[in-house]
Amino acid sequence: MITKQSEIGIVGLGVLGGSYAQALSEAGYDHIIGIDVDESSVQWAKEKKWIAFGGSDPSLLENCDLVVSCLYPGVFVEWVKEHQNVLKSGSLLSDVTGVKRVIIERINGQLRQDVEFLACHPMAGREFRGIQYADAGRFQAANFIIVPTEANRRESIETMKALAEDMKFRTISILSASEHDRMISFLSQLTHVIAVCLMNTNDNTSLARYTGDSFRDLTRIARINETMWPELFILNKDYLKEDISAFIHELEEFCDMLEAEDTEGMRQKMIQSTRRRAYFDKEI
Amino acid sequence: MITKQSEIGIVGLGVLGGSYAQALSEAGYDHIIGIDVDESSVQWAKEKKWIAFGGSDPSLLENCDLVVSCLYPGVFVEWVKEHQNVLKSGSLLSDVTGVKRVIIERINGQLRQDVEFLACHPMAGREFRGIQYADAGRFQAANFIIVPTEANRRESIETMKALAEDMKFRTISILSASEHDRMISFLSQLTHVIAVCLMNTNDNTSLARYTGDSFRDLTRIARINETMWPELFILNKDYLKEDISAFIHELEEFCDMLEAEDTEGMRQKMIQSTRRRAYFDKEI
Repeated sequence: MITKQSEIGIVGLGVLGGSYAQALSEAGYDHIIGIDVDESSVQWAKEKKWIAFGGSDPSLLENCDLVVSCLYPGVFVEWVKEHQNVLKSGSLLSDVTGVKRVIIERINGQLRQDVEFLACHPMAGREFRGIQYADAGRFQAANFIIVPTEANRRESIETMKALAEDMKFRTISILSASEHDRMISFLSQLTHVIAVCLMNTNDNTSLARYTGDSFRDLTRIARINETMWPELFILNKDYLKEDISAFIHELEEFCDMLEAEDTEGMRQKMIQSTRRRAYFDKEI
Repeated sequence: MITKQSEIGIVGLGVLGGSYAQALSEAGYDHIIGIDVDESSVQWAKEKKWIAFGGSDPSLLENCDLVVSCLYPGVFVEWVKEHQNVLKSGSLLSDVTGVKRVIIERINGQLRQDVEFLACHPMAGREFRGIQYADAGRFQAANFIIVPTEANRRESIETMKALAEDMKFRTISILSASEHDRMISFLSQLTHVIAVCLMNTNDNTSLARYTGDSFRDLTRIARINETMWPELFILNKDYLKEDISAFIHELEEFCDMLEAEDTEGMRQKMIQSTRRRAYFDKEI
C-alpha cells in the first residue's frame, strides 16, 4: 500500500514528470525521488521542493514502492530493459504513455515477475517540453485513465486511483487497453493529424491577418511535439489509420454533395453534427 | 457622401443586421432605418434605440443614401430583383455576404445603373440566429473586407471604410472577389467542413467525458447554421472543392507515412505545421 510516507520514484522530469512531482509533493507525499539524465531538471525540481532527492542514477529508486515512468514510449521500454533490476521486489510500476496496447505488451513481456505494471494515462499533455512548463494545476481540468489488465491486482488499481485523486484530476476512469486506444485515436490522434494536415495543405501564412477564431481554434494543436507524436501514432497505427480513412470517406461524401449542389444532404449532415457537438458542451 | 445625418437602411435584422444597427447608432448615426419581415425584430431594434424607425415595407428606404443588405445570399438577390425600384437614385448598396464572385455578378447583372453596389464582408458571423444575439462588441475582434470591382468609385470605397472604422472593426482590408473567395474557402469554409465531417465520422457522443480541449476547439464550429452554410458552400463550389481535395490529398500522404512507419517524414510534416502555425499566433 502506498502512503504519504512511501518512497515514490518519478523517472523523466519533463512536463508530466515535473507536474506529477509537484502535484504529489503539494498533496503531502514527502518522499518523491526524481530521476532524469538532465541534471538541471533534477535541480529545478529540488529547488521547487517537488522532490526530496534525485539524480541520474536509477539505483536511487531501490526503496520505492511505486515508480512512475514519465518517459516517451520507446525510451520507457528501453529503460525497463536496462534498469528493472533496481526496482524493489513487490513494487508497482506505472506510466503516462498515450497509447496502451503495445506498451502493456512490451512492458509485461519483459518485466520481472515480482514487479507489477499498471498502465495509466493522465490526459494532460502540452505542446511545450521541459520541466519549466510543468503545472500541476492543469490536472484539475484533465482526465486520468487507468488501463488495467487481468493481471493487475485490485489493490494496485485502488492505489493509482487514490494517487490521481490526490493529484486532483477532474475525472478518473477505468478503460481496457483497446477502449483507451480507440478513444485516443479518435479524440486526440486524429485531431492532431487534421490540424497538421490543414496547416500543410498550402502555404497559408499570408492569410494570418484574415484569420478568425475558428481557424485558430482548429489549428492550435498544429504546434506539435514532433519527437513524441510520430512514435505514438505508429504505436496505435491500426486504429488511427481506420479513423483517418473514415474521416476521409466522410469528407469525400460531403464533397460529392457539394458537387451535386445537394443542399438538403449537406443540411442533414450539419443538423447531425450540431446535435452531436451539443453533447460535448454539456460535459464541460 | 454619407454623414451621421444620412439615412442609412439595414435590410434584415438578424445577428449581423442588428449588430450593424447597434454599432452605427452607438457611433452617432441618427437615421438608421431597419427593414425586416419579422415585426418583432424591428420592435427589438426600436426598443434598443438601434434604429430611428422601421418596418417590413421596403419603400421606407426611399430616402436612404446607403442601404446594407444583411440577408442570406439567395434572398438578397431576390430582394434586389423585387425591390430595387425603391432605392434612391445615386445611392450606394452594400451587403455582408460571405462569398463574393457570384454575388457581385448576380447583383450587378440586374441592378439599376443609377445605384452602385459595393460588396463588403464583415467577418463576424455567429452560429446563433436572430437579433437577440446581435452584439456590436464582437466587431472589435473582427476583420472587415471591402471587395470592390473596377466599376466602384473611390468615394464609395472611402465611405464603407469610414463606416467600418466607426463600427470599430479591428482591421479593414481591400481584396478582389477572387482573393476574398479563395481566402474564405480555406480559412472559413474548409474549417467548417472539417468540423462537420469529424463529428459525423462516427457516433462519438459516448466519448464526450474523455474529451480534452483539442477536440472541443476543433469541433466548436460543428454547431453550424444549416440554412446558410450549404448556400455559401455552393456559391463558392470551385474553390472549396479544390481545398477539400488538397486537404484530403495531404491526409492521404500522411496516412501513407504512418503505414510505412516513416517517422522522419511525419516529423518533417509536424515541423512545417508548427512553423506555419506560429505565424497565426503572432497576428493575434
